Amino acid sequence: MTDQNQDHQDHKAKMQATKAEVDARVAQAREKRGTIIVLTGNGKGKSSSGFGTVLRSVGYGLKTGVAQFVKGKWPCGERELLTKLGVPFHVMATGFTWVTQDRDLDIAAAETVWAGCKEFLQDPSIHLVLLDELTYMLTYGYLDTQEVLRYLQERPVEQTVIITGRNCPQEVIDIADTVSEIKAVKHAFEAGVKARRGVDW
Amino acid sequence: MTDQNQDHQDHKAKMQATKAEVDARVAQAREKRGTIIVLTGNGKGKSSSGFGTVLRSVGYGLKTGVAQFVKGKWPCGERELLTKLGVPFHVMATGFTWVTQDRDLDIAAAETVWAGCKEFLQDPSIHLVLLDELTYMLTYGYLDTQEVLRYLQERPVEQTVIITGRNCPQEVIDIADTVSEIKAVKHAFEAGVKARRGVDW
Repeated sequence: MTDQNQDHQDHKAKMQATKAEVDARVAQAREKRGTIIVLTGNGKGKSSSGFGTVLRSVGYGLKTGVAQFVKGKWPCGERELLTKLGVPFHVMATGFTWVTQDRDLDIAAAETVWAGCKEFLQDPSIHLVLLDELTYMLTYGYLDTQEVLRYLQERPVEQTVIITGRNCPQEVIDIADTVSEIKAVKHAFEAGVKARRGVDW
Repeated sequence: MTDQNQDHQDHKAKMQATKAEVDARVAQAREKRGTIIVLTGNGKGKSSSGFGTVLRSVGYGLKTGVAQFVKGKWPCGERELLTKLGVPFHVMATGFTWVTQDRDLDIAAAETVWAGCKEFLQDPSIHLVLLDELTYMLTYGYLDTQEVLRYLQERPVEQTVIITGRNCPQEVIDIADTVSEIKAVKHAFEAGVKARRGVDW
């Protein structure tokens, strides 16, 4: 056998072993239900990951709901496009807390968005719900964590919920099925590069 | 002053300080250009984050190109929807290496997708390029890392490139502006929950 043939055979054997391992793991995963997915940590990519999964769900024609906490005052490419495609949005109209500087106004705005979320979380026709930046509402004490946990746990069994934001409370992590922590290794903004429309916002 | 008024004033003072800090950081970030963003690590959310940013860019009507390495054999909600919206895709037709089990076939398929990427990376009208799962092509040695680095560095100055995949080579991290490492804290699949259409694929 030539060296090249040997390499080819080695690669094939290695890949056959990998395939057997992957197949076994896939066979083991038998439970069919929606999940709670948390994207937390200080790195870039949490909300965009949530929106990427929304795009996937909408692409399959599955009913999808989005709530945006914190953000929402300014125009937003993904919201405009998804709204055109018929995706319902609940958006917190006050924006960043350091801009509002009024705790009561923030709480009222958070509660209005949460009322819309509760409808999503009780609607079995909705395949996927994105609760973008929800974690801040819990860490700031703007929403009642126990009530949020109850609605999450009592949601329709087939429904998947994605929660994004830094410092996700441990109680939410405990009931979540999938948790990713997004760590900032480096960030262009810290190196003096301006945030860009169509990338960062 | 009542306690409630005091709380209100304390919140306002704290938020004013935060605003001053945020404003100063925003003012410091003055460089206007495209960036290289890397989403790596073993956690869920890398590709979906890339696709979320694609959605944002497309939502603003900005020209966006997508290349999918590894994945691509099966139907895919986000691809179908984005293709309808006019987003050009280059897709590796062989799928997972452990399914192909043929190194030469994989390399030829990777090179075909890379030829499409090189066109994206030389086109100043393209605002954003997603190179989904590119890292595997480099770690497997399917593409030449030096050539990939050269095309990334010589791309149009206004163009942003997002690279996803586990184990991103250090040379790519070195030239990137923003790097997020997505750590799996837990994953539903490991707990026996089946991957779901419209969420996981």
